Amino acid sequence: MTTATDASTDAPVSLALNRAGQDLLFRTARTANAFTGEPVTEAQIRAIHDLVRLGPTALNSQPLRLLLLRTPSARARLLPHLSGGNRDKTAVAPLTAVLAADTGFPERLPELFPHKPQAATWFGDPEYRENQARFNATLQAGYFLIGVRAAGLAAGPMTGFDAAAVDEEFFADGRWRTLLIVNIGRPTGQPTRERLPRLAYEDVVRSA
Amino acid sequence: MTTATDASTDAPVSLALNRAGQDLLFRTARTANAFTGEPVTEAQIRAIHDLVRLGPTALNSQPLRLLLLRTPSARARLLPHLSGGNRDKTAVAPLTAVLAADTGFPERLPELFPHKPQAATWFGDPEYRENQARFNATLQAGYFLIGVRAAGLAAGPMTGFDAAAVDEEFFADGRWRTLLIVNIGRPTGQPTRERLPRLAYEDVVRSA
Repeated sequence: MTTATDASTDAPVSLALNRAGQDLLFRTARTANAFTGEPVTEAQIRAIHDLVRLGPTALNSQPLRLLLLRTPSARARLLPHLSGGNRDKTAVAPLTAVLAADTGFPERLPELFPHKPQAATWFGDPEYRENQARFNATLQAGYFLIGVRAAGLAAGPMTGFDAAAVDEEFFADGRWRTLLIVNIGRPTGQPTRERLPRLAYEDVVRSA
Repeated sequence: MTTATDASTDAPVSLALNRAGQDLLFRTARTANAFTGEPVTEAQIRAIHDLVRLGPTALNSQPLRLLLLRTPSARARLLPHLSGGNRDKTAVAPLTAVLAADTGFPERLPELFPHKPQAATWFGDPEYRENQARFNATLQAGYFLIGVRAAGLAAGPMTGFDAAAVDEEFFADGRWRTLLIVNIGRPTGQPTRERLPRLAYEDVVRSA
């Protein structure tokens, strides 16, 4: 294995996405822990959804769901289930979104994948159904984080929470399963630390 | 639930990403099943990696790994483990990539997340370690599919395969776990069918 290198290397071949787009989505974008007081509007979340819903999923199943915690009382219900280091920043973020996988996704398949009308019957096994929901919703969570940046906002994704407790608190019917919690807003100033190192091509790619 | 709508609606508020970038990554991009004969070079995959490795993962863990199947003999080892409908197109795709999660990812954490030197010790439980590897690598798989499009190429992601058999064939040491197999190249002509319907905002977003 080679040593992880820093992230400042320019790509050796040109991408079709222009440099401004590369910077917005990846190169200068950073995970944010502190935000300005500017609200995140429903129209902004609608615009993000309108873009990222076009990303691919298996059988066009689209199992990602979002719960937006807008009221102080809703935010207060979440905080006890976050790890200690995530509570204060989440309490004051302009918007907190709970990203979840809908284990009931096969219900919509006749409409979403109409040329295989029998597709919904392939998910009778609950464990398989949940695994497929989680996998495809996690792909979509990746698209969503890119979409937040495409809207000119910053995302603060967090996995430090008690998922079973969040599910019980907000999704008591057992259908949605929490994957990721994301604070969203405009970041304040510059990031407080250098970008962490990234793995090199040789660390992660093999050929056969 | 409302009816799923088609994907032609423009966003009601402007995104920071310009229209050409939106089109390239999401709006006109389509999953591809057939490609021109033009090869996909290592330099292109390096450029994609150089961009998308910057996307966020928990603890900066970056567990996604790629196996590029470049030789006919390597491709032939994969085909029997694909579902029937995926074999012919994969046999002739310019490049096929196996996207996998590295369950050994904690080894690199002292380097990747240096301000918490004890982080690697949090993953002693094999099931938890594998779940975290899969989750974060799947987020990165989402970034990778966007990156393929950012390079001006098209991706044909597939989940129709026997994952245990692919792991046994290519990752016999048990460390990498196959998540997604992706054909990559320049698409031939226009997509052969209309884009499938996408769920509406009201179908997937709730507020509290």
